[in-house]
Amino acid sequence: MIKLYTAPTPNGWKASVALEELGLPYEAIAINLSEQEQKKPEFLKMNPNGRIPVIVDTEADNLTIFESGAILIYLAEKTGKLMPSDTKGRMEVIEWLMFQMGGVGPMMGQANVFSRYMEEKIPTAISRYQNEGRRLFEVLNGHLANHEYLADDYSIADIANWCWVKTHKWSGISIEGLDHLQRWVNAIYQRPAAVKGTKIPYERRLDDTDEKKQAAFIKGAQTMITR
Amino acid sequence: MIKLYTAPTPNGWKASVALEELGLPYEAIAINLSEQEQKKPEFLKMNPNGRIPVIVDTEADNLTIFESGAILIYLAEKTGKLMPSDTKGRMEVIEWLMFQMGGVGPMMGQANVFSRYMEEKIPTAISRYQNEGRRLFEVLNGHLANHEYLADDYSIADIANWCWVKTHKWSGISIEGLDHLQRWVNAIYQRPAAVKGTKIPYERRLDDTDEKKQAAFIKGAQTMITR
Repeated sequence: MIKLYTAPTPNGWKASVALEELGLPYEAIAINLSEQEQKKPEFLKMNPNGRIPVIVDTEADNLTIFESGAILIYLAEKTGKLMPSDTKGRMEVIEWLMFQMGGVGPMMGQANVFSRYMEEKIPTAISRYQNEGRRLFEVLNGHLANHEYLADDYSIADIANWCWVKTHKWSGISIEGLDHLQRWVNAIYQRPAAVKGTKIPYERRLDDTDEKKQAAFIKGAQTMITR
Repeated sequence: MIKLYTAPTPNGWKASVALEELGLPYEAIAINLSEQEQKKPEFLKMNPNGRIPVIVDTEADNLTIFESGAILIYLAEKTGKLMPSDTKGRMEVIEWLMFQMGGVGPMMGQANVFSRYMEEKIPTAISRYQNEGRRLFEVLNGHLANHEYLADDYSIADIANWCWVKTHKWSGISIEGLDHLQRWVNAIYQRPAAVKGTKIPYERRLDDTDEKKQAAFIKGAQTMITR
């Protein structure tokens, strides 16, 4: 069984969407970011960086893995699914996974920090990250113009990028005019595992109109910009 | 033979340091960032994101790989070196590689953007990234307190993180008081391959006092914040 320590954020969803898609038995343990549970000593033993998600594989001598990108590679290799085994196919998946880890994730994350979580509003910083996010979306769109998925078949690269791209409105980044990207976003929404995985550890709508819920989420997210 | 399309930046060095360490025959092709060569059609065919480094393995049917993190995994798997083959050992390497890809790299990169390359100086943004860089350095320091290297042996995870951490002064991030991190930085400086790899495609000192050279480098780096 896999224990997944997570919170309802794009990085957390990457793990739960993959687990759902693979049909692996797992238990999701919600980490309360606004209570800074990810900075408590017992959590830091699992991930010294104090970030979700973390998995513990009880079938593999309690092997503990942090960093969402590492978790995705582990789950794909454990099952032999969601990533081809031949070198060329594998490398295509890993390229687009790294593109998400080093590009889409950090840039959308910074767009969120400056547009949503920081009290001081700095237009130059907000537009920098929204522009960079849009540029990265255009790269994805160009690639998807002649590829159904980012690599040959649906893979952990799609999961990683989709979990972020689907939240583009929250980051204030438009996908207008990016027809191929929209087609791909919608195609993945058709996968029950993707929909279910993004309701783990519980359903949270970024566009929730409940102000209390929004305030609690933002408080949790703000812990990312204080340390 | 491996063709390495690169420029003298931390992400470029990751590939050349690994190639030197592995003793693989390679040819480095300098991409002139200030001339935007990374945005030309022939380069975009290799990496649609328009970023260095890219490798082409002429021994493997001209397999072309972009994203420094993917290149490192490819080189390690091709040679069976710089990453253990057992699952636990491999995952430790991949965790710390992802930590660099999603954390150290983007955060130091943004510190550079706001402190060095952007004409408008925004204190809140500069301190945000310098603080986050320092926090990540403290995570590395804590881990290195009881580990000689980030994983069991010297690996691509050390190469990836070292290529960035060694430039901490350029980012305005101190490593004072982080004795274990300093010990590790210095230990890797003792490796001839690390020193040689960071002079590829040509030697460039970030603290170069030649104003013309500095201006040309900054012009190249500024292409990262225009698209």
